[in-house]
Amino acid sequence: MSPAPARTPYLRLDRPRVVRNIRWLRDHLASLGVPLRPHLKTAKSVEVARLLFDGGSGPITVSTLAEAEAFAAAGFTEILYAVGIAPAKLPDVVAMHRRGIDLVVLLDSVAQAEAVAAASVESGVRIPALIEINCDNHRGGVEPESAELVAIGRALTGVSGEVRGVLTHAGESYFCYSEAELVKAAENERAVAVRAAETLRGKGFEVPVVSVGSTPTAHFARDLTGVTEVRAGNFVFFDLVMAGIGVCGTDDLALSVVTTVIGHRPDRGWILTDAGWMATSRDRGTARQAVDQGYGLVCTEDGEVIPDLLMTDASQEHGILSLREGSPRQLPSLPVGTRLRILPNHACATAAQHASYQVSTGETWPRITGW
Amino acid sequence: MSPAPARTPYLRLDRPRVVRNIRWLRDHLASLGVPLRPHLKTAKSVEVARLLFDGGSGPITVSTLAEAEAFAAAGFTEILYAVGIAPAKLPDVVAMHRRGIDLVVLLDSVAQAEAVAAASVESGVRIPALIEINCDNHRGGVEPESAELVAIGRALTGVSGEVRGVLTHAGESYFCYSEAELVKAAENERAVAVRAAETLRGKGFEVPVVSVGSTPTAHFARDLTGVTEVRAGNFVFFDLVMAGIGVCGTDDLALSVVTTVIGHRPDRGWILTDAGWMATSRDRGTARQAVDQGYGLVCTEDGEVIPDLLMTDASQEHGILSLREGSPRQLPSLPVGTRLRILPNHACATAAQHASYQVSTGETWPRITGW
Repeated sequence: MSPAPARTPYLRLDRPRVVRNIRWLRDHLASLGVPLRPHLKTAKSVEVARLLFDGGSGPITVSTLAEAEAFAAAGFTEILYAVGIAPAKLPDVVAMHRRGIDLVVLLDSVAQAEAVAAASVESGVRIPALIEINCDNHRGGVEPESAELVAIGRALTGVSGEVRGVLTHAGESYFCYSEAELVKAAENERAVAVRAAETLRGKGFEVPVVSVGSTPTAHFARDLTGVTEVRAGNFVFFDLVMAGIGVCGTDDLALSVVTTVIGHRPDRGWILTDAGWMATSRDRGTARQAVDQGYGLVCTEDGEVIPDLLMTDASQEHGILSLREGSPRQLPSLPVGTRLRILPNHACATAAQHASYQVSTGETWPRITGW
Repeated sequence: MSPAPARTPYLRLDRPRVVRNIRWLRDHLASLGVPLRPHLKTAKSVEVARLLFDGGSGPITVSTLAEAEAFAAAGFTEILYAVGIAPAKLPDVVAMHRRGIDLVVLLDSVAQAEAVAAASVESGVRIPALIEINCDNHRGGVEPESAELVAIGRALTGVSGEVRGVLTHAGESYFCYSEAELVKAAENERAVAVRAAETLRGKGFEVPVVSVGSTPTAHFARDLTGVTEVRAGNFVFFDLVMAGIGVCGTDDLALSVVTTVIGHRPDRGWILTDAGWMATSRDRGTARQAVDQGYGLVCTEDGEVIPDLLMTDASQEHGILSLREGSPRQLPSLPVGTRLRILPNHACATAAQHASYQVSTGETWPRITGW
């Protein structure tokens, strides 16, 4: 094991927790008989992707073409790009197919379907697409029994595109706060996707893929009949938002920002650190939850949560730690130079502030950046 | 001029506006007879740093050692590292001095001063330090007439450190909303710094440097008697927070995120784009201002502001555009594939989400990342 980096802040990854988190979801989905197509938008790491497939490769989901290209270069050949396709990106999609990558695009309009069909004709490469379905008004997608869904299917296949299937994402499950609500969100996600597939099948489309997923619904699904793959990404690391929803405990959080105490303002009840929002991100996802965790819970360098101590404010390179409002405790004595860990609100956002992970076992794992 | 990148989102930099913004502040400070020591924490770019010195170099301020090292490699030799020093970083500070860089550290405690003095003795390199002074309870710093200030000075010089001077930052000026308040914040910043310098001079210290600054106070200072340098960083780009304070107009904003329309939800009044918080950051600085600009104002690809259209929500790679609440206007017709620009809340945070600038004149300028 190599020594901890001398410079803070840095992003620490607890490898045993990642391995445990992966096994947890994989076992759950195995019990439901549905494979995982992990979303790498959270980890953006080839090494984490390999952990997800026991050192090998497998079907994955990505959020950028930069991720698709990096994972393709690392040997991943089945890739779903799960953000609505912009027509100007299609030449890059075609180029990846020509290199042997089964890159599937996502769309929810006739305009996009026509662009995909036209690019397929022009290039001679049949670009496979999933049609996005709305299940909870969180983002985009068409209704599962709509004429628009069928029109998109026809626009795609009328020329030479391919309706690979349907996809939905229960984005509103991030705002569920009971097991009953989460189970219901998962069942709704499943039912909507299956209904959309049936709509298309009723019109003669094959629809081999029925894709659902989000970390909360993946964990709380009780039945996945009709679903062919589950997407989830955050579960590999978890974060305070997921703990606040009740998907995991704080002991499952695999990411933390390591920081150093650089000052004190006892008159204000503040401890100052060298991790500001540049290191944690500006994400304050727990602000909307029952327990607001500020910019994060504070742990000792060894990872023990310090009771009632929060990172309550941030400027670019300064963090302010103070006691949770109403706490009866005393501010702990943490001299200048003390190292601490901050558990983040939102793993995807915090990880994105860093170029690499410092892994608990001593390695440095780079992150994929950009678009 | 090279063509615009095919892939969105990307970060666009309007070079003529940067040049104009630099001239604006430089002329103002020249009229007050005080030099600028620009803070490169916003731009993190060697090319922007060169623009600040008409192609040459000069004294600069940085927020990380990674910036210090990158600017040193580019020929900048006078560098202030304006975040309270963590003792574990001192060997890297010493190493930079040995390479001929006048790297000045910042501190506000006897513990840090003792660490700096000890590192100076051990290395034989006299590490110069500024002492941070509190002027508005925004962050760290000691009081300008306190015994603690003098004790820090003595701890530094008692062995072999160097009290280079004092520094203060009017961080609360970001929450001023009238010219009178801004002028007052600037005068308070000046007066506090000068009082601290006088305190130390009264005890026999030389105090050659009296450093103040923030973008709002730098622009609204009417008199800088006793000040030897002004730090400011955001002014090179400006942003919606600065426009909301009244420091600039939206026509002065030099940064924007270029994005593409990827979908519509007319039932919700939404236009969906491929720029989510990964491209804009989670910073919602205008949420606390009189006019909340959401995640940003929306412009045409040519940079014309589209009236009442805001980026109102964001997920990782999706932006949601909708009309400002209460707007009497119709949602504009922006078909899939339309390119738009988003003007950001906070230039420092938005720029940090990108590895480089796509400059309006065709160049790509890399950004310095990490710590």
